[in-house]
Amino acid sequence: MIAEVVSIGTELLLGQIVDTDAAYLAQQLSSLGINVYHRATVGDNLARAIETLRQATERADLVITVAGLGPTMDDLTRDAIAEVMDAPLVRDPAIAQHLSDWFAQRGYPMSETILRQADVPTGAVALPNANGTAPGLLLEKNGTVVIALPGPPNELIPLFETSVYPYLLERTAGERQVIRSKTLRIVGMGESTVEEKARDLMEASNPSVAPYAKTGEVHLRVTARASSAAEADRLIAPVAADLRQRLGGVLYGEDDTTLEKAVVALLMAQKKTVATAESCTGGMLSGRITDVPGASAVFHTGLTTYSNDAKIHLLKIPASLVGSFGAVSSEVAKAMAERVRELAEADYGVSVTGIAGPDGGSDEKPVGLVYIGLATAEGVTATQHRFNGLRSDIRLRSTQAALDLLRKELLKA
Amino acid sequence: MIAEVVSIGTELLLGQIVDTDAAYLAQQLSSLGINVYHRATVGDNLARAIETLRQATERADLVITVAGLGPTMDDLTRDAIAEVMDAPLVRDPAIAQHLSDWFAQRGYPMSETILRQADVPTGAVALPNANGTAPGLLLEKNGTVVIALPGPPNELIPLFETSVYPYLLERTAGERQVIRSKTLRIVGMGESTVEEKARDLMEASNPSVAPYAKTGEVHLRVTARASSAAEADRLIAPVAADLRQRLGGVLYGEDDTTLEKAVVALLMAQKKTVATAESCTGGMLSGRITDVPGASAVFHTGLTTYSNDAKIHLLKIPASLVGSFGAVSSEVAKAMAERVRELAEADYGVSVTGIAGPDGGSDEKPVGLVYIGLATAEGVTATQHRFNGLRSDIRLRSTQAALDLLRKELLKA
Repeated sequence: MIAEVVSIGTELLLGQIVDTDAAYLAQQLSSLGINVYHRATVGDNLARAIETLRQATERADLVITVAGLGPTMDDLTRDAIAEVMDAPLVRDPAIAQHLSDWFAQRGYPMSETILRQADVPTGAVALPNANGTAPGLLLEKNGTVVIALPGPPNELIPLFETSVYPYLLERTAGERQVIRSKTLRIVGMGESTVEEKARDLMEASNPSVAPYAKTGEVHLRVTARASSAAEADRLIAPVAADLRQRLGGVLYGEDDTTLEKAVVALLMAQKKTVATAESCTGGMLSGRITDVPGASAVFHTGLTTYSNDAKIHLLKIPASLVGSFGAVSSEVAKAMAERVRELAEADYGVSVTGIAGPDGGSDEKPVGLVYIGLATAEGVTATQHRFNGLRSDIRLRSTQAALDLLRKELLKA
Repeated sequence: MIAEVVSIGTELLLGQIVDTDAAYLAQQLSSLGINVYHRATVGDNLARAIETLRQATERADLVITVAGLGPTMDDLTRDAIAEVMDAPLVRDPAIAQHLSDWFAQRGYPMSETILRQADVPTGAVALPNANGTAPGLLLEKNGTVVIALPGPPNELIPLFETSVYPYLLERTAGERQVIRSKTLRIVGMGESTVEEKARDLMEASNPSVAPYAKTGEVHLRVTARASSAAEADRLIAPVAADLRQRLGGVLYGEDDTTLEKAVVALLMAQKKTVATAESCTGGMLSGRITDVPGASAVFHTGLTTYSNDAKIHLLKIPASLVGSFGAVSSEVAKAMAERVRELAEADYGVSVTGIAGPDGGSDEKPVGLVYIGLATAEGVTATQHRFNGLRSDIRLRSTQAALDLLRKELLKA
């Protein structure tokens, strides 16, 4: 089966949003062994949307459209599909009822245009959208399948997983060529050093090995093609095992294991807790930890002491320490980690203090200077970092370094 | 001038990377007043790359290719351009010398395939690449311009800015049609209601008005085309003014003013401070506030009290209150806001407590139930919310509601 993804939206052509949906769909189709040879993007213009969609139906068996299903006049995906597939729009009473109910339940007034979302090309099936008002659509006609999905990722992804994936899985059961990949996630080693270690494996093509640099980490992706998932996994396994060996402790997780997930999992396994005291990251570190479902077992307390006063009064850090060394110092980082550990009665205390910029830097303490403190039952340490990039990069890299410092400590146990 | 961006790379079709280059280029072209009607993505396959590139040269005056300029056999952009533009590849001795020097300086061995990067379509000019070995290419022939850029953003962006932008600026000087837009950012009103208010303005085309739904907010974008930026702004101004009038208090900011920026600006203007006490958002709210440069003037302290114990011990919330009403309740939200306001000696205390899921919900207190508390010198209030979506959506919408509650309070002053 050959698929083509057509994204519809002027905001994409103006660069106002990045098309992450297209990448998600490409991954999903690839995991199903469905080939994608082209991807097209067109604006909110009916004539061009029709032309682009027509070309897609000519060169692919499966066309997935993204966006343009909302209630507004710019939302013309339904019209374009109706035209290209020769399937005039008809109002679906069940969808219309669902929309009325949705608005009634919430006590919102429903405008007449909302009902545009109940218009479907003749013969199309509505795909329920748990997180929005616009249903997806699936139309199978003359050997071509057109699937229309809403644009917001929080609607598209659940809808794809619930309705589209099972449908495609069944459709492609007989002809599957599967592409599988495994991602090895690395922290604390630069891309070129990672590449150095993997160089010889990068020359092979099945499985292929490729590095990807992210903010504060590097991913190595091992990808194999085979006639079944099991066979592809069999090709990946020895290469992944070899890489694990070569990478050692800088490999923190695999596939969708984020650094915060890895750290929370280690804490859970060891039945330990952590508390955080943050200055320049302002709560992002505790925000990342609590992004992991079940984090409440290992994290109870986080303090954002953004001002010197808050450090002194809330964390009871001696004013003299802040006065002598400055809030951005190894000494204050250590004191913050120790104090929050005591205050929260946690096994570990982690602290971050630094200069995220764009202002506030000096020759002695430049923007990007960050100290991370770690307090344990045995004592307290701090590491010094000098991060590059924008304020947001420096903050993200700081949380990355803090999580990694704790991770390394947990690995010693 | 009409442009088309063609991205070449199997990794894009497999979804292994997100095409941020395309969004960057779209923004740049739009700022130059160059229209983009289509964007295409194709894999590392010569026949399909040629076909896609040919279609692009037929419907656009300017075709920008992205990626496929490296030394490997997969890098076939040069070959595709040579074929479509009827400009056979010739080796450029200056580029070859530059490559040899580059490798010699670094003491790396240079393989013969590296020199593929010195092959250029006849008549093409090399565009120096400061951050990589593959130069960009610019070929002007029979009224069509083809520009080939390397894929890595840290190569593409500087190369575009140094060589391509000045070239396009001059090329389009006579026919410049500038596209400018203004974004009105709205919180606390659904997309369809926003559209209702803007309906008649959405029927016009210059300026055009279009709504975009985001997580927890809606953007209305007013876009105008004109021969100069000043003229475009003159077209936008009355429409934007009309919309401001119609929207009133739900309009929180414009262009790149995020909700946290709007709130920090209001606090600064009124010389007020805020402190936060978070449960289900785990520090994300303070993280957003401190994402704004200069937030230290208005924010000193944030507490993440993720467990009941932390709420009781750190915030001194009566255990009986948590016991009677549960941690996710209007009563506890109010107490959290009041206590953190006192503890931090802030003008405002804002709290969030809720059930972000995926687990922890019950019939009585389902996933998505969130209370936001706000304490002021006058007293304390709490609002109840029922958010849809994934854990990450519920958390983000919670911070959005908390910032908006504070914003509305500040607007009363």
